[in-house]
Amino acid sequence: MVSVVIIGSGNVANHLISAFAKSDTVDVIQVFARNPKTVSALISPEKIVGSYPEITEADLYIISVSDNAAATVSQSLDFHNRLVVHTSGTIALTDLDAKNRRGVCYPLQTFSKGKEVDFKRIPICLETENEADYQLLETVARSISDNVFRIDSGQRKALHVAAVFVNNFVNHLYHIGHTICSENGIPFEILQPLILETAAKIGSLTPKEAQTGPAARNDSQTINAHLSFLSDPDQKEIYKIITKSIIDNGKKL
Amino acid sequence: MVSVVIIGSGNVANHLISAFAKSDTVDVIQVFARNPKTVSALISPEKIVGSYPEITEADLYIISVSDNAAATVSQSLDFHNRLVVHTSGTIALTDLDAKNRRGVCYPLQTFSKGKEVDFKRIPICLETENEADYQLLETVARSISDNVFRIDSGQRKALHVAAVFVNNFVNHLYHIGHTICSENGIPFEILQPLILETAAKIGSLTPKEAQTGPAARNDSQTINAHLSFLSDPDQKEIYKIITKSIIDNGKKL
Repeated sequence: MVSVVIIGSGNVANHLISAFAKSDTVDVIQVFARNPKTVSALISPEKIVGSYPEITEADLYIISVSDNAAATVSQSLDFHNRLVVHTSGTIALTDLDAKNRRGVCYPLQTFSKGKEVDFKRIPICLETENEADYQLLETVARSISDNVFRIDSGQRKALHVAAVFVNNFVNHLYHIGHTICSENGIPFEILQPLILETAAKIGSLTPKEAQTGPAARNDSQTINAHLSFLSDPDQKEIYKIITKSIIDNGKKL
Repeated sequence: MVSVVIIGSGNVANHLISAFAKSDTVDVIQVFARNPKTVSALISPEKIVGSYPEITEADLYIISVSDNAAATVSQSLDFHNRLVVHTSGTIALTDLDAKNRRGVCYPLQTFSKGKEVDFKRIPICLETENEADYQLLETVARSISDNVFRIDSGQRKALHVAAVFVNNFVNHLYHIGHTICSENGIPFEILQPLILETAAKIGSLTPKEAQTGPAARNDSQTINAHLSFLSDPDQKEIYKIITKSIIDNGKKL
């Protein structure tokens, strides 16, 4: 068994504790939580600690706190030369204190509290400073996910930007669709099969191949009719720039 | 049985012919196709005609041609006072020739040639000039779909704009994610579970409730880091305007 200490008690920490509980390879021997209540449903009380000197020896320490706090937490650890990783998509490996062997174990997913996720399908992006640590981290990650990737800090930064486009920004376009429906007395559920089909389609086609619609056809009559229909200035701007970008992209070979 | 003539041989016409073939309520008695080959796999050759005078009497005529051609086709029909509908999301009921009783039967989905779709889940939006015609059209639509909605021409116009946002524009954001991944040696499949989860999430939460990420948090440090990372001018503009719109939206109650 690989012994693991989880440092943190937010969404990602909670989901990791639940996932490791089902793993035959990983034993979560301790959880560091300022407020024990946040993890008490997931782990027995004697395994929860609230101060740094209480942290026990383990094969791996996973810091799963807010991006701003990860560096400070890594400095506060009372030991050195152990394997310490964070779970963030936005900060670098080198943001952790160099007194320990550093790594990253970034699960690329949106975690909502209370909503069960199937961890097996969640991609986990790993990075370490040396190969032996990578092997250990990979063993840990593979015990909860079937999708483990080696991604360095530069790639992770790019991946996070890409994730903002395909998750946060896509969700905002759903919000605009939702608003237009509400304002016109249309049930939003009409759009849901289309939304799911659009997401599923790119499993077999590239997004460029899958593109359809007035912008892809450069159908200026429909584009202008849509622009006159829209009155919200942000919606209008978003319509214009994405249409331009689709047209520009169609011109590239 | 309701007797139906399909006029057209494109994607939507093909999918309708296939779907009606499984229906107990609808009998496609004829298909009008300029080029019989485009539908010959779906219907027996003696039911395919290529000139207007050959079109036979039926309970319902479905014009499924390009948006530009629908009005002209409706004028070319050699009969009057029969129920004639089009399948377009973008043109009005009144674009059809008034010599017949007019209606709309708009399946809201992206149809790709060759890719089988489950019609039962596709929303179909109906509109007619009178209630008796509505009843007939509803019977026909319900025989192939479990999601039938009454949507007038004004609502359909709004719905089409909303669909452009949640389908074409979302797909373009997938394309940007794909491009960023390619340029950084990251397999795009890493993003696919996130994409599917983002689409599935709004089945239980509103998009506004589901919003996360740097813009929702108004995290200017991450936003600026992402903007410096992006070099493509269209990508940068899209990042800026959607971020602004998410922030503006967060301020609304």
